[in-house]
Amino acid sequence: MESTAGRVMAREIAEQPATIEATVNRLRPLAEEIRALVGDRRRVILIARGTSDNAALYGQYLLALRAGVLAVPASPSLSALYRAEVDLSDTVAVAISQSGGTEEIVEAMHDAKQRGARTIAVTNGADSPLARDADLALVTAAGRELAVPATKTYSAQLVAVAVLALAIGQERRLLDQLDDVPEAVSRMLGTEDAAAALADRLRDVERMVVTARGLALTTARELALKLQETCHLAAVGLSGADLQHGPIAMLDARTPALLVASATDSAVAPGMVELARRCRASGADVHVLGGDDALGALADVRVAGPDLPPELAPIPLIVPGQLLTLALARAKGLDPDTPRGLNKVTQTA
Amino acid sequence: MESTAGRVMAREIAEQPATIEATVNRLRPLAEEIRALVGDRRRVILIARGTSDNAALYGQYLLALRAGVLAVPASPSLSALYRAEVDLSDTVAVAISQSGGTEEIVEAMHDAKQRGARTIAVTNGADSPLARDADLALVTAAGRELAVPATKTYSAQLVAVAVLALAIGQERRLLDQLDDVPEAVSRMLGTEDAAAALADRLRDVERMVVTARGLALTTARELALKLQETCHLAAVGLSGADLQHGPIAMLDARTPALLVASATDSAVAPGMVELARRCRASGADVHVLGGDDALGALADVRVAGPDLPPELAPIPLIVPGQLLTLALARAKGLDPDTPRGLNKVTQTA
Repeated sequence: MESTAGRVMAREIAEQPATIEATVNRLRPLAEEIRALVGDRRRVILIARGTSDNAALYGQYLLALRAGVLAVPASPSLSALYRAEVDLSDTVAVAISQSGGTEEIVEAMHDAKQRGARTIAVTNGADSPLARDADLALVTAAGRELAVPATKTYSAQLVAVAVLALAIGQERRLLDQLDDVPEAVSRMLGTEDAAAALADRLRDVERMVVTARGLALTTARELALKLQETCHLAAVGLSGADLQHGPIAMLDARTPALLVASATDSAVAPGMVELARRCRASGADVHVLGGDDALGALADVRVAGPDLPPELAPIPLIVPGQLLTLALARAKGLDPDTPRGLNKVTQTA
Repeated sequence: MESTAGRVMAREIAEQPATIEATVNRLRPLAEEIRALVGDRRRVILIARGTSDNAALYGQYLLALRAGVLAVPASPSLSALYRAEVDLSDTVAVAISQSGGTEEIVEAMHDAKQRGARTIAVTNGADSPLARDADLALVTAAGRELAVPATKTYSAQLVAVAVLALAIGQERRLLDQLDDVPEAVSRMLGTEDAAAALADRLRDVERMVVTARGLALTTARELALKLQETCHLAAVGLSGADLQHGPIAMLDARTPALLVASATDSAVAPGMVELARRCRASGADVHVLGGDDALGALADVRVAGPDLPPELAPIPLIVPGQLLTLALARAKGLDPDTPRGLNKVTQTA
């Protein structure tokens, strides 16, 4: 099984330097168009589920930090189930869906438009209902994704969300620095051996915690989701602050913690070191994805991350997590290309 | 150990009919004052961590559904770590903290005020920094809470959040129906045997999923948190829609699903029945907290819930979850009054 399991996922992970570069080149020229559509609206709602919801979380942070916009992660349930009557005439609704065909998301965006929102779609489906219905479609250039676990479509969503937030915030320097991301992703593909070593340590683990603070939380949440759906781990993904408010009691010798951080985020660095010490005091193994040297020194196994600015680091930082997911699924005898119980386009009843 | 473990938590659970009634009577008369403070502002940010963050989630739903207000669950990290420069001169910031002394929350509310927000504190600490600094303090009447797991302070927070949202939405009928909540909570105290039967089924479980859709999601998340911190379970709490987008692959014969629903929420009922069928198809045990008869019929073990309207049901619905947490901790030989690694007031580095 080792030889062919996850072959498609592995190929799609490796395509990311190219798909990210293509997505930057396609979407960054739309910065002015984005700003024109948004106009003076400073309310944003983000409509997404699953992996796309982790891209939305990245958007929530970047919009606040770099555009001064408080974005709401709007549960699609609010419109799909309850038809909440909210006035959105001062709002931009950003709907994120890989396929662009998930009915719940298409309907929630349509609903937002009916209530006055201008709409932006972030999707890999150029001809999808979501792209067709939106005022502006940010169509990622990830190409067709065949493996069920989203990898290259997720990183392309992050690029689209970054272009959106940085365009609104007129952050020209960071927009330019998107050119550094493909190379950083290429370097992350070189962490394959370290990711495999960590997978080896996690082979018999059934439950774990994946945690981060600040911008890297999007990576921790996405990695927890991947480990759930692809490796069947009960992986609890949550912020380091929330972890210390109670769930840290879950940790023990059979329940490791994986701490995720960018190497350059000085705002979160001291808190992550303190968190690593607290996790270790619980008797748990402590592993680190990314982080600076102080954090890395506290790790049982460390997989190094990128050295981009914290605003852009989440794009390459997920790549070692994807490699870990792939290696761990293989180690457990699972085929990550087709996890049980999943389809590529999910319809929610 | 059985005789004394969790004695304090048990007592505080049982106090809730009285503490909820006292909180309704103290806070509902402030409805006009709340409306005056909010004025024509229709942006709300919710600042909270841990259990209080689950009360914030309830607020997000109720504000959208009953007041037409899209509320943002603002990560305290944004201000604590990054000092995001967001203009809040059209915003009301609601900070929720049991003690009112968690520095991160106090600082985030202070920060919001500096940026122009009007501020409302929801806290059980009448003399706390949070109550003192807020423009308006909604001080719950839960009395001093001694057990580390929050029970009566959480249900009192839900009451405060309900009063806030229903006051803004001028939902007089639902405000009046808050008088029915203490009696519903009393009835829920009668589910002790059913909760103990479910605890018995879960005694050897190490990982599980707790899930709901819509308004009851606040209960599912809070129950998952309680099971993490008090019973050391790797309990993944997430929406039924997100579960079907991937994490459902976690379920198996050793990983049960607990579905949470109010008895009266017809918007979510068909989806929950379908979800129960999908969970069962994975080979997992399926248990139900609350729900209607169609959902209950699919349960291995069911603990009945309240029959209040879905907007108010989350207040009593957590009570059987608290009883389950208490019984399961005892069955595992843990003392729920003092879980490992936790203090009553958490400071986040």
